[in-house]
Amino acid sequence: MALVPPIEYENALPAVRAVYDDIRATRNTDYINNFWKALAHDPAMLARTWAQVKEVMAAGALDPLVKEMIYIAVSVTNNCEYCIHSHAAAARGKGMTPQMFDELVAVTALANATNRLANGYRIDVDEQFAAPLAP
Amino acid sequence: MALVPPIEYENALPAVRAVYDDIRATRNTDYINNFWKALAHDPAMLARTWAQVKEVMAAGALDPLVKEMIYIAVSVTNNCEYCIHSHAAAARGKGMTPQMFDELVAVTALANATNRLANGYRIDVDEQFAAPLAP
Amino acid sequence: MALVPPIEYENALPAVRAVYDDIRATRNTDYINNFWKALAHDPAMLARTWAQVKEVMAAGALDPLVKEMIYIAVSVTNNCEYCIHSHAAAARGKGMTPQMFDELVAVTALANATNRLANGYRIDVDEQFAAPLAP
Amino acid sequence: MALVPPIEYENALPAVRAVYDDIRATRNTDYINNFWKALAHDPAMLARTWAQVKEVMAAGALDPLVKEMIYIAVSVTNNCEYCIHSHAAAARGKGMTPQMFDELVAVTALANATNRLANGYRIDVDEQFAAPLAP
Amino acid sequence: MALVPPIEYENALPAVRAVYDDIRATRNTDYINNFWKALAHDPAMLARTWAQVKEVMAAGALDPLVKEMIYIAVSVTNNCEYCIHSHAAAARGKGMTPQMFDELVAVTALANATNRLANGYRIDVDEQFAAPLAP
Amino acid sequence: MALVPPIEYENALPAVRAVYDDIRATRNTDYINNFWKALAHDPAMLARTWAQVKEVMAAGALDPLVKEMIYIAVSVTNNCEYCIHSHAAAARGKGMTPQMFDELVAVTALANATNRLANGYRIDVDEQFAAPLAP
Repeated sequence: MALVPPIEYENALPAVRAVYDDIRATRNTDYINNFWKALAHDPAMLARTWAQVKEVMAAGALDPLVKEMIYIAVSVTNNCEYCIHSHAAAARGKGMTPQMFDELVAVTALANATNRLANGYRIDVDEQFAAPLAP
Repeated sequence: MALVPPIEYENALPAVRAVYDDIRATRNTDYINNFWKALAHDPAMLARTWAQVKEVMAAGALDPLVKEMIYIAVSVTNNCEYCIHSHAAAARGKGMTPQMFDELVAVTALANATNRLANGYRIDVDEQFAAPLAP
Repeated sequence: MALVPPIEYENALPAVRAVYDDIRATRNTDYINNFWKALAHDPAMLARTWAQVKEVMAAGALDPLVKEMIYIAVSVTNNCEYCIHSHAAAARGKGMTPQMFDELVAVTALANATNRLANGYRIDVDEQFAAPLAP
Repeated sequence: MALVPPIEYENALPAVRAVYDDIRATRNTDYINNFWKALAHDPAMLARTWAQVKEVMAAGALDPLVKEMIYIAVSVTNNCEYCIHSHAAAARGKGMTPQMFDELVAVTALANATNRLANGYRIDVDEQFAAPLAP
Repeated sequence: MALVPPIEYENALPAVRAVYDDIRATRNTDYINNFWKALAHDPAMLARTWAQVKEVMAAGALDPLVKEMIYIAVSVTNNCEYCIHSHAAAARGKGMTPQMFDELVAVTALANATNRLANGYRIDVDEQFAAPLAP
Repeated sequence: MALVPPIEYENALPAVRAVYDDIRATRNTDYINNFWKALAHDPAMLARTWAQVKEVMAAGALDPLVKEMIYIAVSVTNNCEYCIHSHAAAARGKGMTPQMFDELVAVTALANATNRLANGYRIDVDEQFAAPLAP
């Protein structure tokens, strides 16, 4: 059961309405999902979280669908029911097919397994893996 | 410190050599990394794990680089040092740029945060997210 | 669905009643919540767990409300639904306002994010952080 | 081993220097720790992360030391070595005594245990815990 | 709510029926639980997962009941509701008594606590623990 | 690096020496490992933790070796380096063979994988699994 009641547009403060309007414009939909309606009881948290989601999930070096799938992999690992459902819906809206979801879940499960094989045997990192990524 | 000593090709049983050969052929490299050399003390575990990695990480509905990035997102969430280093190297080999890695880490961090916002407020799943994915 | 049935005071063994009585006296309430009623099927586990909670959560160098909030932060990180609800109720009873809860959730989310930034980039610990805490 | 090299003030872009300057002014110290020097290779990520840390960790309904301790509890739960060391140092700078750290670690350990007792027995949430927190 | 519909034997492809038949023969039961019916929408995933479960959970150096209990300990740590219920049922079928389950949950809770004591104080591994396990 | 210095018997308070003596007598060894030497800076925490470990890990419905292996499975899942090394050593002392450790790690990895398959597809718990465990 939710610990904070959802705040509908009609009852929202102007600062909250501004964020809702930007979510609608950015996502090209009228629908505001419960996550934002819950955060809206704290307008500063709503604004801060939306700004971050908007920036991080936007197209960049990775396309938005790949980002959604990375997001889902984390949410499946952490077992966040809300996040799995909301981002599975978002990913479908961006073109994720059922087969892509299956492969995403399969890789997530595999990584959770092999992480524990590496943990359990305390395997030393190969020297050649130690080079930094950035130039 | 590793709990099992790495097994080199020279000292390996035929069943282990067969897996090493297949890793080399599949990855088009001579290098066998410590993960496989550690699992090799249990040839059945080595064969089973490699068969699974080979099948799950191969090109399918998702391309291998996307799969590597999903794998890294899980490993960063779980903080598996070995897995982050080995799969960051693998992803680079498949074309991951530093900027792509930055965005992958940023999405992973964001999802870990918003998972806890959803957890903390116990946000109810929107009804319209409840449709099954598969036809 | 609970894997063990709750044990009510009326049906409880004397060893269980003694713990229930101590919970009531310590917390100044008649209410025994489901957590204790579930553990009560194993009186030794009930007594051991209550003794530990009583000692660890009591006023000390930290006040009980701060301890409740630390407890909630862990439970949100692990997504323990029961623990979030029960300790949010306990923290409210000790003076936690909705705004305090918001800040607690915000810090918890932030730490879960920045933990993954540090994990992902494998950032080296600064030398000056390495001094031990105790004198 | 760090996957990105630290960026020193001398070699930093103006956008990075502006963040470093603000960290120094806000924290009243000259020291920039490795976390920020690592993020600095991606100036947008640095600016976004610092803005969030500055806002979330500032004094509000909770004082900054309580926030640091909540942060540490999450980092201990997730076993983020960097974060434990850096925020233990920060908390000490804000007045955390060794005894306060002991109690923080004890509550964190306890919550991690009782989370699993609740998980394991699948204990039902008490009806009276179900009231929302916000007015 | 399940993201994929369960597939019953009557409607299953031959490849799926073959796995269901092997599950029934191996477990000496007619019942196919929802886990397998969900995976069945992707016959390759079903076959791969069942092959692994069959091999890993079979009698070996550890007996199947010990393996079930190890499995439950992981599932309680990760709070996987489905897995706790399904493997608690499986373990009961292999002779797990309520007292054995209590001790399993108690050890799981304890380990989750002491893991955080070791994390929090960053305790150095004793030199004599550093010997590899395998000959 | 450890955040608290280890306390040797020679420099320990009588309350700490009493716990060390009991550890030695219970385990039939002179060796006190770093975990206890670290907790010893807070004698109440040392006494409380040891009392719990002694009670929970003792022979009961499960034998001590099975308990050690459950403990290791949790520690591998959480990636607690100290705990894996110390309890792998303890389990070896109680008869765990390398093959038993391999099977323990394999089950732990498998459970971490299948937990995510169940999470990812949000599989509904079978009705017949819902019966409580205790009589």
